[in-house]
Amino acid sequence: MQDSEKILLAHGGGGELTARLVSEVILAGLGDAALGSLDDAAVLQLAGSGTSPGTGMTRRGAQDKASRGQVAFTTDSFVVKPLFFPGGDIGRLAVCGTVNDLAMRGARPLYLSLAFIIEEGLEAGVLRRVVASIAAAAREAGVRIATGDTKVVERGSADGLFINTAGVGVVPDGVEVCLAGARAGDAVIVSGPIGNHAIAVLAQREGLRFETEVESDAAPLNHAVAALVGGLGSDVHVLNDPTRGGLAASLNTIADASGVAMEIDEQSVPVDSAVAFAAEMLGLDVLTLANEGKFVAVVAESTRESALALLRKGGPRRAAPLRKSASGGSHRPAVIGRVKKGKGVTLLTSGGGRRVLEMPYGEDSPRIC
Amino acid sequence: MQDSEKILLAHGGGGELTARLVSEVILAGLGDAALGSLDDAAVLQLAGSGTSPGTGMTRRGAQDKASRGQVAFTTDSFVVKPLFFPGGDIGRLAVCGTVNDLAMRGARPLYLSLAFIIEEGLEAGVLRRVVASIAAAAREAGVRIATGDTKVVERGSADGLFINTAGVGVVPDGVEVCLAGARAGDAVIVSGPIGNHAIAVLAQREGLRFETEVESDAAPLNHAVAALVGGLGSDVHVLNDPTRGGLAASLNTIADASGVAMEIDEQSVPVDSAVAFAAEMLGLDVLTLANEGKFVAVVAESTRESALALLRKGGPRRAAPLRKSASGGSHRPAVIGRVKKGKGVTLLTSGGGRRVLEMPYGEDSPRIC
Repeated sequence: MQDSEKILLAHGGGGELTARLVSEVILAGLGDAALGSLDDAAVLQLAGSGTSPGTGMTRRGAQDKASRGQVAFTTDSFVVKPLFFPGGDIGRLAVCGTVNDLAMRGARPLYLSLAFIIEEGLEAGVLRRVVASIAAAAREAGVRIATGDTKVVERGSADGLFINTAGVGVVPDGVEVCLAGARAGDAVIVSGPIGNHAIAVLAQREGLRFETEVESDAAPLNHAVAALVGGLGSDVHVLNDPTRGGLAASLNTIADASGVAMEIDEQSVPVDSAVAFAAEMLGLDVLTLANEGKFVAVVAESTRESALALLRKGGPRRAAPLRKSASGGSHRPAVIGRVKKGKGVTLLTSGGGRRVLEMPYGEDSPRIC
Repeated sequence: MQDSEKILLAHGGGGELTARLVSEVILAGLGDAALGSLDDAAVLQLAGSGTSPGTGMTRRGAQDKASRGQVAFTTDSFVVKPLFFPGGDIGRLAVCGTVNDLAMRGARPLYLSLAFIIEEGLEAGVLRRVVASIAAAAREAGVRIATGDTKVVERGSADGLFINTAGVGVVPDGVEVCLAGARAGDAVIVSGPIGNHAIAVLAQREGLRFETEVESDAAPLNHAVAALVGGLGSDVHVLNDPTRGGLAASLNTIADASGVAMEIDEQSVPVDSAVAFAAEMLGLDVLTLANEGKFVAVVAESTRESALALLRKGGPRRAAPLRKSASGGSHRPAVIGRVKKGKGVTLLTSGGGRRVLEMPYGEDSPRIC
């Protein structure tokens, strides 16, 4: 990017433009001050003297060996608009997003930080509702809020409320999941129907009503991941949650990092009919819509049925759910394709055709998380 | 706070109103989902199974026993306006602020997360300058950026650029500094002249010119803390950096947490003459002005001269400074008072009087960090 080039909304979309901003401006500028690619949870070595260098991803998807004493560390900011939407709110997102980033490294999430940037004039009651939702989601995930910060900026300098959470977790001995782990022959699984989160937020923002209300799927994934990894061990090769950029970004990221191709059966991708209808109305491709409570798992082909069975049961809940689960669909996992030799992601369409499923370029739906 | 009450800029000032917002809305809402008071770096237990509960501060200043395997964790958002000012910029602040929060728990800072919220339309060159400054400050502090996130919001929904950093560090065995550690008879030391950061930012924002330009003192304090703690061990009882709310907030926080009184000699508090002049012009009390490269140390009286000597030398630099140090004054430490039995902070004024040095209430100077 040229210095005079302006940063666009599309640079925040989680697609190609985001990758370019991060690599050309942020990573290039940080140089050796950065541990790795920054776009995933990092795995750090803190044991002993604390001087051993971390094993961040030196490039997107570089292999990380997990071993005793490894700590996973991640961060996410949340700027979703509106603050409240069917099935969730900014507080629930702020917990689930960071918990899920840790879970996707196979880590057990333990502690979150919680930082608010508040626009002057926000009502205390709004903040209180958000905090209550954070507390409920933290209990659901089994994490504690360990540290925090609160800033207030003058009216017009922020849009109501932004939240940043960072998270710390521990990678259990022997767990080795990373973006680069997919191998030809593996099965590609998605943990449940996609697109619900983006449609729930967009419908609320635009004041659209559909016959069936679509709820966000925002949910902590750590219990389901623990069940899957606990059952299959090293047969779980890759975990990735399709947030910004959706399933298309997630699959392309995995294929690219692993140096493999993928073939996806469009018909087998679970999509709620209300979501499919809304996406068509809005002219959006459901494969690029953000999710906040689903993940892609690439597993050894021989374990695909066990994987499905484990995901159907879901993970053990550490706490009784405090609210009607918005993730009803998370117990409808499906095998959606397979890993092959080569490169790129091919979609076998419902109509019997084939097309390249590309990495999304910019941003279809800003402020979705 | 009533639900209908609006959050004001003053709620972000680091004084009494901030404390009220945090306790009545945030901590009350989190309940047992919070580990502690959230307003300082937390110290976590991650060793072994990772299930042992952390030893966060259950109330402001609760005692924490440091032991093997303790990890410190903190977060801060930065909303300073303008983004660049004499002696620093938002990027340098974002590194130093979080490094210093870790250092104030006696921790060795190791890794930071880095999250940007960017207003659509920001020039890539501006972000590039900020990232370069982050990299330089990280090298100076000896920390690595381990993970990150980038969000873009539409024009008018944020003011240019906000940054959040979270930090992870390790507490060396045997280090026990906490807000509650001050004992009657201890000496109160400040590591250098105060008020420079706030004056530098305010002057730049308001377009004020003084005969001598005041530079921000933004600097990582971890090396100086390592030197002090390395030399004096458990004779260092409290460390605290006077950021928002300034020295007045810092001293009141310590006195309150430790259940002691303090007597401060106004004349002995180091203040650069240009800062004193500017503060008077602006009608601001220098004792409430934010600093970003100074700290208060409460030490055993018998070690006060050794403490001053160690602070004059400063900490070992891990990397050659990449810029003219903005912290020229950081090597002019001073004993400014003593800890007594009782409660509250008393100022022995230059004129020979006594007055209560109160906890600041709201906010004199918003968007200072």
